[in-house]
Amino acid sequence: MKFSPLLDELIEQFKVLPSVGQKTAQRMAFHLLERNREGALKLSDALRNAMEHIQHCRQCRTFTESDLCDICASSKRQASGTVCVVESPQDVLAIEQTSQYQGLYFVLMGHLSPIDGIGPKDIGLDVFAGMLDDTDTQEVILATNSTVEGEATAHYIHQLCQEREIKTTRIAQGVPVGGELEYLDGSTLVHAFSGRREL
Amino acid sequence: MKFSPLLDELIEQFKVLPSVGQKTAQRMAFHLLERNREGALKLSDALRNAMEHIQHCRQCRTFTESDLCDICASSKRQASGTVCVVESPQDVLAIEQTSQYQGLYFVLMGHLSPIDGIGPKDIGLDVFAGMLDDTDTQEVILATNSTVEGEATAHYIHQLCQEREIKTTRIAQGVPVGGELEYLDGSTLVHAFSGRREL
Ligand SMILES: [Zn+2]
Ligand SMILES: [Zn+2]
Repeated sequence: MKFSPLLDELIEQFKVLPSVGQKTAQRMAFHLLERNREGALKLSDALRNAMEHIQHCRQCRTFTESDLCDICASSKRQASGTVCVVESPQDVLAIEQTSQYQGLYFVLMGHLSPIDGIGPKDIGLDVFAGMLDDTDTQEVILATNSTVEGEATAHYIHQLCQEREIKTTRIAQGVPVGGELEYLDGSTLVHAFSGRREL
Repeated sequence: MKFSPLLDELIEQFKVLPSVGQKTAQRMAFHLLERNREGALKLSDALRNAMEHIQHCRQCRTFTESDLCDICASSKRQASGTVCVVESPQDVLAIEQTSQYQGLYFVLMGHLSPIDGIGPKDIGLDVFAGMLDDTDTQEVILATNSTVEGEATAHYIHQLCQEREIKTTRIAQGVPVGGELEYLDGSTLVHAFSGRREL
């Protein structure tokens, strides 16, 4: 017996969230109904606004509700002559949170994956090539993931840059800060050794 | 630099959900934007509908969008002469999922807690007393939690029932199905022994 179809519907819809199953969905629904209906209504509005208005930046492809995102629109960022290539908008967020990088981005929204039929155009590399041709880019920083696909994608983009004689760098691989050697996998250790720097 | 105020707002609002912090909220927002915008819009609607229409049943106080919930409105349930008293609508859901119980419920929406100023009226015991007086209740099953507060609340309700000469039972305490003795706390073991039944 269903004692509230609307409650059932809410529990069901919570399962669109990653890692949320029946039990967690129930806890979320009851928590909001019992303790925070106002917050739930704000979440409802935020979901609708985000889904209806957030698209991709015309230049860097990150998420934004503007035609051109704030980063691409910044004259200071444009003057940097640097473009950092990442796989996802989350990567942009992570890098921005360090407040260290002051250049532009290009977001692939994925990586090359021939086995899944994902080629250069599917990750916007035609747009990226146009960006390189139209702007005065001095350095491309490849910050794709340290995975097989991320490395292959970085390699492909390196070639695009070489054809245009643009300096290309790859972010360093090594021991994460706070990481303990005994728990690292072998290939990370190999990279950490080969990338060692004189003190 | 905020590259999308609407995205920031969505991430912020996800934190109204229990156990959801910054990282999980980010993952939820990006997951929906990248992979399931339609699902996100459905979740938005489900949230609004639930928050605006779900109230408490006039008789048993569980969550429902009707004046009287389907359980209270069922003539079969009414004829059972049994009322199960629980602390929350989640408890009703858990018991209903077993499909074993066919009586009515009364939902306290909490428990007695003098230290927090929560007395009998705050958990609807005046409404419950009225329900006992108005209906032909043969048995009240006390299914409050096995906590200090749950036990105190059960004790108080037992007295209400005694005054009306209504049979009162308490759900059994013991070893959970699949539970291993060595991991049980002592008081559970004590209850399991004292509640032993002949085979
Ligand atoms: Zn941009
Ligand atoms: Zn009811």
